[in-house]
Amino acid sequence: MDLKYTILVIHGPNLNTLGSREPGVYGRETMESINSRIKELGEKNRAGVKFFQSNSEGEIIDCIQQSVSGTDGIIINPGAYTHTSIAIRDAIAGCALPVVEVHLSNIHKREEFRNHSFIAPVCIGQICGFGGFSYDAGLIALLNHFKSAEQQG
Amino acid sequence: MDLKYTILVIHGPNLNTLGSREPGVYGRETMESINSRIKELGEKNRAGVKFFQSNSEGEIIDCIQQSVSGTDGIIINPGAYTHTSIAIRDAIAGCALPVVEVHLSNIHKREEFRNHSFIAPVCIGQICGFGGFSYDAGLIALLNHFKSAEQQG
Amino acid sequence: MDLKYTILVIHGPNLNTLGSREPGVYGRETMESINSRIKELGEKNRAGVKFFQSNSEGEIIDCIQQSVSGTDGIIINPGAYTHTSIAIRDAIAGCALPVVEVHLSNIHKREEFRNHSFIAPVCIGQICGFGGFSYDAGLIALLNHFKSAEQQG
Amino acid sequence: MDLKYTILVIHGPNLNTLGSREPGVYGRETMESINSRIKELGEKNRAGVKFFQSNSEGEIIDCIQQSVSGTDGIIINPGAYTHTSIAIRDAIAGCALPVVEVHLSNIHKREEFRNHSFIAPVCIGQICGFGGFSYDAGLIALLNHFKSAEQQG
Amino acid sequence: MDLKYTILVIHGPNLNTLGSREPGVYGRETMESINSRIKELGEKNRAGVKFFQSNSEGEIIDCIQQSVSGTDGIIINPGAYTHTSIAIRDAIAGCALPVVEVHLSNIHKREEFRNHSFIAPVCIGQICGFGGFSYDAGLIALLNHFKSAEQQG
Amino acid sequence: MDLKYTILVIHGPNLNTLGSREPGVYGRETMESINSRIKELGEKNRAGVKFFQSNSEGEIIDCIQQSVSGTDGIIINPGAYTHTSIAIRDAIAGCALPVVEVHLSNIHKREEFRNHSFIAPVCIGQICGFGGFSYDAGLIALLNHFKSAEQQG
Amino acid sequence: MDLKYTILVIHGPNLNTLGSREPGVYGRETMESINSRIKELGEKNRAGVKFFQSNSEGEIIDCIQQSVSGTDGIIINPGAYTHTSIAIRDAIAGCALPVVEVHLSNIHKREEFRNHSFIAPVCIGQICGFGGFSYDAGLIALLNHFKSAEQQG
Amino acid sequence: MDLKYTILVIHGPNLNTLGSREPGVYGRETMESINSRIKELGEKNRAGVKFFQSNSEGEIIDCIQQSVSGTDGIIINPGAYTHTSIAIRDAIAGCALPVVEVHLSNIHKREEFRNHSFIAPVCIGQICGFGGFSYDAGLIALLNHFKSAEQQG
Amino acid sequence: MDLKYTILVIHGPNLNTLGSREPGVYGRETMESINSRIKELGEKNRAGVKFFQSNSEGEIIDCIQQSVSGTDGIIINPGAYTHTSIAIRDAIAGCALPVVEVHLSNIHKREEFRNHSFIAPVCIGQICGFGGFSYDAGLIALLNHFKSAEQQG
Amino acid sequence: MDLKYTILVIHGPNLNTLGSREPGVYGRETMESINSRIKELGEKNRAGVKFFQSNSEGEIIDCIQQSVSGTDGIIINPGAYTHTSIAIRDAIAGCALPVVEVHLSNIHKREEFRNHSFIAPVCIGQICGFGGFSYDAGLIALLNHFKSAEQQG
Amino acid sequence: MDLKYTILVIHGPNLNTLGSREPGVYGRETMESINSRIKELGEKNRAGVKFFQSNSEGEIIDCIQQSVSGTDGIIINPGAYTHTSIAIRDAIAGCALPVVEVHLSNIHKREEFRNHSFIAPVCIGQICGFGGFSYDAGLIALLNHFKSAEQQG
Amino acid sequence: MDLKYTILVIHGPNLNTLGSREPGVYGRETMESINSRIKELGEKNRAGVKFFQSNSEGEIIDCIQQSVSGTDGIIINPGAYTHTSIAIRDAIAGCALPVVEVHLSNIHKREEFRNHSFIAPVCIGQICGFGGFSYDAGLIALLNHFKSAEQQG
Repeated sequence: MDLKYTILVIHGPNLNTLGSREPGVYGRETMESINSRIKELGEKNRAGVKFFQSNSEGEIIDCIQQSVSGTDGIIINPGAYTHTSIAIRDAIAGCALPVVEVHLSNIHKREEFRNHSFIAPVCIGQICGFGGFSYDAGLIALLNHFKSAEQQG
Repeated sequence: MDLKYTILVIHGPNLNTLGSREPGVYGRETMESINSRIKELGEKNRAGVKFFQSNSEGEIIDCIQQSVSGTDGIIINPGAYTHTSIAIRDAIAGCALPVVEVHLSNIHKREEFRNHSFIAPVCIGQICGFGGFSYDAGLIALLNHFKSAEQQG
Repeated sequence: MDLKYTILVIHGPNLNTLGSREPGVYGRETMESINSRIKELGEKNRAGVKFFQSNSEGEIIDCIQQSVSGTDGIIINPGAYTHTSIAIRDAIAGCALPVVEVHLSNIHKREEFRNHSFIAPVCIGQICGFGGFSYDAGLIALLNHFKSAEQQG
Repeated sequence: MDLKYTILVIHGPNLNTLGSREPGVYGRETMESINSRIKELGEKNRAGVKFFQSNSEGEIIDCIQQSVSGTDGIIINPGAYTHTSIAIRDAIAGCALPVVEVHLSNIHKREEFRNHSFIAPVCIGQICGFGGFSYDAGLIALLNHFKSAEQQG
Repeated sequence: MDLKYTILVIHGPNLNTLGSREPGVYGRETMESINSRIKELGEKNRAGVKFFQSNSEGEIIDCIQQSVSGTDGIIINPGAYTHTSIAIRDAIAGCALPVVEVHLSNIHKREEFRNHSFIAPVCIGQICGFGGFSYDAGLIALLNHFKSAEQQG
Repeated sequence: MDLKYTILVIHGPNLNTLGSREPGVYGRETMESINSRIKELGEKNRAGVKFFQSNSEGEIIDCIQQSVSGTDGIIINPGAYTHTSIAIRDAIAGCALPVVEVHLSNIHKREEFRNHSFIAPVCIGQICGFGGFSYDAGLIALLNHFKSAEQQG
Repeated sequence: MDLKYTILVIHGPNLNTLGSREPGVYGRETMESINSRIKELGEKNRAGVKFFQSNSEGEIIDCIQQSVSGTDGIIINPGAYTHTSIAIRDAIAGCALPVVEVHLSNIHKREEFRNHSFIAPVCIGQICGFGGFSYDAGLIALLNHFKSAEQQG
Repeated sequence: MDLKYTILVIHGPNLNTLGSREPGVYGRETMESINSRIKELGEKNRAGVKFFQSNSEGEIIDCIQQSVSGTDGIIINPGAYTHTSIAIRDAIAGCALPVVEVHLSNIHKREEFRNHSFIAPVCIGQICGFGGFSYDAGLIALLNHFKSAEQQG
Repeated sequence: MDLKYTILVIHGPNLNTLGSREPGVYGRETMESINSRIKELGEKNRAGVKFFQSNSEGEIIDCIQQSVSGTDGIIINPGAYTHTSIAIRDAIAGCALPVVEVHLSNIHKREEFRNHSFIAPVCIGQICGFGGFSYDAGLIALLNHFKSAEQQG
Repeated sequence: MDLKYTILVIHGPNLNTLGSREPGVYGRETMESINSRIKELGEKNRAGVKFFQSNSEGEIIDCIQQSVSGTDGIIINPGAYTHTSIAIRDAIAGCALPVVEVHLSNIHKREEFRNHSFIAPVCIGQICGFGGFSYDAGLIALLNHFKSAEQQG
Repeated sequence: MDLKYTILVIHGPNLNTLGSREPGVYGRETMESINSRIKELGEKNRAGVKFFQSNSEGEIIDCIQQSVSGTDGIIINPGAYTHTSIAIRDAIAGCALPVVEVHLSNIHKREEFRNHSFIAPVCIGQICGFGGFSYDAGLIALLNHFKSAEQQG
Repeated sequence: MDLKYTILVIHGPNLNTLGSREPGVYGRETMESINSRIKELGEKNRAGVKFFQSNSEGEIIDCIQQSVSGTDGIIINPGAYTHTSIAIRDAIAGCALPVVEVHLSNIHKREEFRNHSFIAPVCIGQICGFGGFSYDAGLIALLNHFKSAEQQG
């Protein structure tokens, strides 16, 4: 397989329990199921996809820092850190990669403290509310971003 | 052509001037260009797409009310009304259709008054920041929503 | 029939879809049904009643301005514009008529942004929470206002 | 006289001085005058009306608790406690009766601290601004509420 | 003794325990000691002084209402009700008497919630921070107010 | 029976209707049932327990003031006065007794105005969310407080 | 007549009723009178002046969009939309013309919600408080702006 | 004359125009008239009184610093600097003298920005609302403060 | 020993230094001493108790996720993460276990930022202010919760 | 020259450095250049113009107080004191002259703390954003104000 | 002595009383002692140091304006004006010199109104909390700034 | 080498990428370069310096706890945790060491959420804005703190 891009998907805290955790809010699809679908979708588009999950703010920052070389773009679901982590925001701002923020639930219709994202201002865009499909849409949007950048380059 | 769904795309205020209006913020693509690309993408997926643009809050409400029959879902870019119109929110809540909110720019990295959406809490999800491609992603997400609903039905 | 007063009833945005729109919140009575009941109640009290509905803030203002002559009082349900329209407030303040504000739902027990009315400070009083009957109560209160004014005159 | 309903009217603090207290704000009608008019209006509609006034938050709560049996509905003008008493709110929520909140003045056009009601969210509706006639309108609305409940029962 | 004025001194909640209650904040003088000093000071100035203390918001309102006749002015230390009672404010506004607000402690240097007085806007003036002597100063100021009013009359 | 401590349990407004009042929020146990269980638990631990309930802020203050002698500690459920009464706070601060604040419901997961307690800063600690058992836990904690104080004494 | 500039004057909601509407706030001069004076003043300075009034937010946006060609500058009195319309702000930002914001009344000495202008940040400057003469001053300032731009060009 | 205390009276900005400045708010008495009355009242009580007025924040600070020696106490009416000057607050905190804050008008019933005093937390107490007599009351309270301090010494 | 329940006690950041850390605030008892006392208390009640401490938000989340099976309930002292961690809140909401929140100090009488708990809304109840004994009370309350649930089952 | 009016122009802090100070914000015109242009414009309109500049809040107040006699109106650019000086506001309110507030920059599009003017509520109107020409417009508006007053007189 | 730089040290209000003023907060070192130590430290580093102190906001602005020529950098302790003076901020922004802000106390651990600095955003950096040594550190940092600028030049 | 003090330097999240991360904000110097310069500066002053960097809040707390013995003082750049970590604040408060907070950028001129430090109130002082030299200044200030403490000891 001839891959043109390498994309890193980062899952934030509690996303490893998807499927069993509050299914009324987050749905029944597991993280593994999302990952394999995204991997397949990536490969159809000549993009290799790597996955990372951690419940630790520090490890997510480590991961972003280490992805600077060998990665073309990031899809991140920062989970609850969306609303509290300036440190992850700084890590994203500090790496030179295009980043897309995704959320399973529509964070704008939940508790007020979930309406604000510290991460959004350092990302290309935000996609939320489509369950596991938010990742699919995020990947498609990131690939389109690459294409646009190439056309303009 | 055998169309399965009818989708309405609503463009809010000032989107008719896309391409010439503040291209640094909104890009150079025109509304017409987005519409023809979305129409084509819809038809590839057996969805007919209708378009509506207005600078008037009241006309957008009229349009939503009238779409109740003969429409399967709505993609709306409410423009500046996103942040000020409870009346459009009520119109969306009042129609029985799935609605996807899209924005050209990443509203979460702009002025604080653009971070809040009155529309989001009555939509499935929100996609922002990908320029004209936000509409493409919105259409794909809406079609996926139809598919999921059918599978669960 | 010998009518003594002319009263204008203004229905704001989305009230034309009453009955089908979110019946859990707004009840199942239609605007037409309210209107005919109010018309009858008015006539019993020697008051002719005119009706106007619009989803457009501007048209509501036009209507208020034009009612200055030939109208003795207004009953207005400003719908969502209650919470966002300073322009309608100014139109009411600018006409010399007594105005009663009515709401189907009890706006003080709903989302916080529905607790505040830009319209109330320029009205005689506010009646909310009694479904379609809020209009009846509004009409009765307006007629009583006329009577009091006459007695004091 | 054949009474079908028993209604309790509660007057909050300072309403016993109506007529002499700040007539520019509250009018010249006395509480006694309101009570006799409401009593008469009730009886015309087969409703017996009881009256209670107290300047004490605790006594108003006592009264609400004791009205649980033998009362079909409450009309309450909580006066200044509207804006400060969570305890009266809890008493209302704790009794199983329909309650209508009334105010002589239009609280939404007065000082900002009078715009918020702790009581409203546990009532059917709120009527304010019509002087002593707010009680009349409240009684009419409560009777209509009984009728609607019976029709739906 | 030939008395020209009758003055009512109202002590709010917890002032009956003065002397033993938090002496670091409120000093060691008792309410009784203040009262006898104020009585004497009043009589020296041809003013009879009546005293009232209650821990109950309602009883304080009752007392204010009943003082309307036979009283020329009020000195009130509303204690904690200063910061929470709109009902006492309304009672003061509703009586036609000049009222002076006094506090033992300097409420403007204590917790933020003690900085605001609901009572002050309906009083002539406010005196705080001089321990029991705040009452003396309040009486002197009230007597001066009478004198000024007479001179202007 | 040889009692070593005397403990006062104060129930605030609306707690006299426990069992019938909003059982979804407050449970089905009555105040009387709590009282007899607490009495028994106290006696097992050589503590006599007295009980007081009032809907009146002023009476609760009276009760706290009078408990200064002959009482070793207080368990108080201030009900709605938790969020509005600075006067009860001052009464507690003014008595020299250790006080434990208890609530049936978890006030920190309810309406925002129930999250703040004016009472907590003058108490040893706060226990909430365990229904009637919050009183049991409060008594156990108060007894432990006595024991610790003795050990340190 | 040899005109060098074309200037568009936009009057927002309720300005068509000038003269009769709240003359205590807005004065007795009518919109027509202002227009003819401004027309004359413009012509004296070789500027043709066009006029537009609407009560509709959407029509004002339409008008601004259409003025892009054939207009050299805009004088806008957005009326109540000053404080609520992000959509008009976006329309102004989207057209390439210099815009001057004018108000009859001094909006900075009125209700707090009238102190903030969504429009100001996209205009050259703001003039308020001089009644109908605010338009004259706005025209003079706009003409001066043209002159400065030419000198710098 | 045998003087025991030296007291400094500081008048802040605009108090030199008393009598002619906004007499509806501040009364018709001049600063000179207040000063001579206060001087006389002081001397009756064996206190010499010095006076200082400035419109300059810096000069008021200079004056406070220089008063440290040879002055026993200060009466200050900080005028508008009450609400804006942390520097005067620091100067008062930095001198070792007892200070009484006085105001002609009742600052707690005026605009919200006049309700807060930066000065109050570093003063013994605050007296406001009694016109020029606020100074008299301030002097009496300061003299009483000296007496109490001596008794406790 | 026949154990019926397994309970997990989680100590958040800085609790491992108990005894030496700010003893004026947190007391002199060590975490080890609390643990052995709780273990003993648990075993007396047929409950085995496991302990976990971490300074890392991520490790606490890991621990909560892993406790889903084999644990009947959790006692958590989230330390400073109480006020900042939405991620721990989500982990608790995501596990199906009853959780009791405990604090050594009375967080409601400390800095304002310690008054709010992100954790409380997903717990049964909160106990704070009793030093190390808060854990004892938490265990007793959790055991009572099990008993109630069994009785209702 | 026959002068009819005397106008005082007050320049606040830092305006003496105009031309060299932050020219990107304030332009390159000097204060002296503005003054000579305004002088000339005044004389053309039979108005003598006096000028005053100070960096000191106190001196500006002194100047306003002294201008009460012999001055017909004031044009003031309060510079940074616009946003912080209640004392200058009081001085303006205290003089009986019509005052026009001007600003070089459009303060409504700068930092949020520059959007609010303490001065505006005591002025006729406000003009901002036209660089040095704001003074010209202010003079023209003030002259027009004189003319209107004469016509109405 | 061969001096390379000229540095101006500005002491704001109340710093002339250092040593005697609130030594618990500001220490016992006098301004003169700081000045002589800073002078010596400057000279060791080939920098002449000038000193200025004033309690007047206006004089500090005058001083900054006059320092534009003949000064290479400023160390300013704005004292209480840190939190209230936009005019000093504008003066600093208007001069072309590098400025370091210093404070004796750690302003971030004091009253909330001392946490915010209007001055900081126009300075290179801020140093606070080290008593008189904050000036030393400020001088060292400013000299390092010169060195860096030269190296980059 | 004879070392008298041991100092720990803690670098918070993202500081390990200094030099490449957003050089426009943070400069081009690397963490390693800072460390070796600080090491050298320390040794010149008889202070050994240890270094620690982590992206993990928990590990920084671990490190602070472990430094209690064998360390004389800490210099910490908490990075983004400055604004979000109460847990690090508690760790610092819990260790008995003097701590100096440093920042590369001037946090008071950046986004509003970077203006507030949870860390500052438990540190001696704060130094920010001097790039890598902030560490040098921090070390010098800490050494001076040791010297002062010795002189006072």
